[in-house]
Amino acid sequence: MLFHVRMDVQLPPAMPVAQADELKKNERELAQSLQRSGKWRHLWRIAGQYANFSVFDVNSVDELHALLTSLPLFPYMKIEINPMCRHPSSVRDTDA
Amino acid sequence: MLFHVRMDVQLPPAMPVAQADELKKNERELAQSLQRSGKWRHLWRIAGQYANFSVFDVNSVDELHALLTSLPLFPYMKIEINPMCRHPSSVRDTDA
Amino acid sequence: MLFHVRMDVQLPPAMPVAQADELKKNERELAQSLQRSGKWRHLWRIAGQYANFSVFDVNSVDELHALLTSLPLFPYMKIEINPMCRHPSSVRDTDA
Amino acid sequence: MLFHVRMDVQLPPAMPVAQADELKKNERELAQSLQRSGKWRHLWRIAGQYANFSVFDVNSVDELHALLTSLPLFPYMKIEINPMCRHPSSVRDTDA
Amino acid sequence: MLFHVRMDVQLPPAMPVAQADELKKNERELAQSLQRSGKWRHLWRIAGQYANFSVFDVNSVDELHALLTSLPLFPYMKIEINPMCRHPSSVRDTDA
Amino acid sequence: MLFHVRMDVQLPPAMPVAQADELKKNERELAQSLQRSGKWRHLWRIAGQYANFSVFDVNSVDELHALLTSLPLFPYMKIEINPMCRHPSSVRDTDA
Amino acid sequence: MLFHVRMDVQLPPAMPVAQADELKKNERELAQSLQRSGKWRHLWRIAGQYANFSVFDVNSVDELHALLTSLPLFPYMKIEINPMCRHPSSVRDTDA
Amino acid sequence: MLFHVRMDVQLPPAMPVAQADELKKNERELAQSLQRSGKWRHLWRIAGQYANFSVFDVNSVDELHALLTSLPLFPYMKIEINPMCRHPSSVRDTDA
Amino acid sequence: MLFHVRMDVQLPPAMPVAQADELKKNERELAQSLQRSGKWRHLWRIAGQYANFSVFDVNSVDELHALLTSLPLFPYMKIEINPMCRHPSSVRDTDA
Amino acid sequence: MLFHVRMDVQLPPAMPVAQADELKKNERELAQSLQRSGKWRHLWRIAGQYANFSVFDVNSVDELHALLTSLPLFPYMKIEINPMCRHPSSVRDTDA
Repeated sequence: MLFHVRMDVQLPPAMPVAQADELKKNERELAQSLQRSGKWRHLWRIAGQYANFSVFDVNSVDELHALLTSLPLFPYMKIEINPMCRHPSSVRDTDA
Repeated sequence: MLFHVRMDVQLPPAMPVAQADELKKNERELAQSLQRSGKWRHLWRIAGQYANFSVFDVNSVDELHALLTSLPLFPYMKIEINPMCRHPSSVRDTDA
Repeated sequence: MLFHVRMDVQLPPAMPVAQADELKKNERELAQSLQRSGKWRHLWRIAGQYANFSVFDVNSVDELHALLTSLPLFPYMKIEINPMCRHPSSVRDTDA
Repeated sequence: MLFHVRMDVQLPPAMPVAQADELKKNERELAQSLQRSGKWRHLWRIAGQYANFSVFDVNSVDELHALLTSLPLFPYMKIEINPMCRHPSSVRDTDA
Repeated sequence: MLFHVRMDVQLPPAMPVAQADELKKNERELAQSLQRSGKWRHLWRIAGQYANFSVFDVNSVDELHALLTSLPLFPYMKIEINPMCRHPSSVRDTDA
Repeated sequence: MLFHVRMDVQLPPAMPVAQADELKKNERELAQSLQRSGKWRHLWRIAGQYANFSVFDVNSVDELHALLTSLPLFPYMKIEINPMCRHPSSVRDTDA
Repeated sequence: MLFHVRMDVQLPPAMPVAQADELKKNERELAQSLQRSGKWRHLWRIAGQYANFSVFDVNSVDELHALLTSLPLFPYMKIEINPMCRHPSSVRDTDA
Repeated sequence: MLFHVRMDVQLPPAMPVAQADELKKNERELAQSLQRSGKWRHLWRIAGQYANFSVFDVNSVDELHALLTSLPLFPYMKIEINPMCRHPSSVRDTDA
Repeated sequence: MLFHVRMDVQLPPAMPVAQADELKKNERELAQSLQRSGKWRHLWRIAGQYANFSVFDVNSVDELHALLTSLPLFPYMKIEINPMCRHPSSVRDTDA
Repeated sequence: MLFHVRMDVQLPPAMPVAQADELKKNERELAQSLQRSGKWRHLWRIAGQYANFSVFDVNSVDELHALLTSLPLFPYMKIEINPMCRHPSSVRDTDA
């Protein structure tokens, strides 16, 4: 089941660099692990923004919520979710 | 080069059904042809909306504009474009 | 799986009364049938608006989309969807 | 009498963890007590957000205001209220 | 129980003058009758707008919804409702 | 001359409780004095908000501005003003 | 007493040219007469818009409302009003 | 050449009173000097707001920008500019 | 003197094709003539939109207004204007 | 390939002047170097704002993102990007 997610990150200006780096390193490791598992199906940087467009493939809304709230940067994110389904004109099997 | 596109379709209520059907049939044929060519890389329906999220892979902004304005439903669409690039945490070769 | 849906209905002023009545009658029958099946779990009128708040309990996003687009009033609705999950402080078994 | 309420919580980044935990614990206890009393009829987490959709069943606007402002997290919430009434197509007695 | 209501009226430009006059005459009669009954407690014109601020004093949300939807101009109104309660600094008995 | 005013109060989270209490006490005293003088004609709490709807009856815009800026909480308020006049359908002498 | 008014005019595309010309001619005559009387103190065109910024000097809100609603183009205007007062740093007697 | 400018001032809550007073005093002196020179043609307080509506009469956009950025309160202002021209219905020579 | 202008064109769906073609042909001729004269300094299509970003170089706001309102498509445009000046970091003589 | 970019800068009020000056000096040097290389094709100040309109001419979205995120002021900017293409009515070779 596919969900389109936009995440905008805003770290507090006063956060020490070391803490920010640690957060980003942990975020990256978890993001890569979730991509390899197939749960985080697509991940793109939005040009000029500290933000991404993502597509998640999960079994339930609860699983989506658990994944998003487990992200180290979650407390600093504005998140926007749109549920998606197969488009009737789609010809690509992996987009279902 | 990747562009994230959201298209919202709004047909005039007074459009005859036959004309709408013809437009949609032509739109679908072109959409499928562009997907097979690799230019229209992803196409998903946004749940509960007459709208889609798409990802285009084109060589230039001019090519993107030409593709979008060639769509039969273009005159009835509200279109929102975001240029995208590879995310530094992406592990998926086909997302570049 | 729960989805919160807000539907705002806007019928064209020029629609003949008989056509509007037929649409509303069919909408009501389908809405009641879907409520009895358990798919449309809650349905409330928003005071002073031709609009409702609803909760759907479906097995997938595809099912949600199919239900919403089958509504006779769908072409005249603005729809807003929010996926929901069980709240950690909820004590009510039927809210999961 | 039913009121639909959306609550978005935003704790100040500088709040000590112990204070936040204490607030959340007290919030949970009061939320559960109000649910058991029947005043807080529904409570759902909005996926990906530190926010909830709720339905309150109260005897007056004054009672609603007193309940909301008694919540320990109230000073950190953005609250949006919509009064609701029974939908003419509802078949569910407990939604009145 | 008090509700603050803002109503903005927008008649279709194509509506015949006689029909508009009939609607306005009926609206005025009902509005005056509801004011005399005490249900429509205050009614002010917003300067420079075809709009009003009103305060309704009703026994329930259902009653409020029934009153608003009975107005002849209801199909042409955008309505915004805010439930109100007595202000702790109010000294005016008739504002409760 | 009537002005409809909405005031939303937002105290800085870091303000000491004693300072906030002093401000609120002074605000209340001035608000009650202005109500008794007839200048602040109506004052209602908006449910679930630290905000009010008010109606002022003043002789000039200058007087309105002087009253609002004299409020102890003024520096912490977002204020929205709408001039009002007698509604042609009003039957209530005290609403003019 | 001064009120700042922005008026945006939107004539229906289907209005016959002769009717539009008649409306504009009457609007201009009334606007000039009100300027000469001192009630419509300033009138400027907003560049690139079918819109104006105006300053009215009236004795009451009722007078302002009566003037605005008497304009031939009033039914086709979106109007935004801000009450103004003398600025403490103003040195210009005619701005009070 | 005329420009309509709205300035909204927002001083940081933590700014010491003496610093704020100094800024305001310098702002006032410059504002009065610019009014006397004819560059700052009108200046009105917006009622209930720490904001003003102004009209500048300058020889170029560069001059306007230089004037605005020279204001002591400029770093704390939100500024909105609309270029204006003589209205075809204006009868007032000094509004050109 | 430079002005940044965004124009969004929206032709009425019911406009006959021949009329639209005539308008567009005249618009193009005038646009090209104004570019050659140096008044319309830049003109770009916004990708995926029936809209453009333009830069005008004019001697006054009145001249800008006269140019814009002389465009055949003016009645069907939404126009947004921002006055610009030389950037202190600019190295390009032709951007002043 | 052309991209229209608007950048709004907001430095934290608490940033020491020396740090701000250093950032601005570095920003200016890089901006001028990028203009000389032809990548940053146009740069204008928006009047009355700490903001600019820019046009970038790059070979890819990745290059655009790399340039923008390399700017010393990037962490303090709100950035809005619109891809552009040659306008069919353009007569200026250097706008392609």
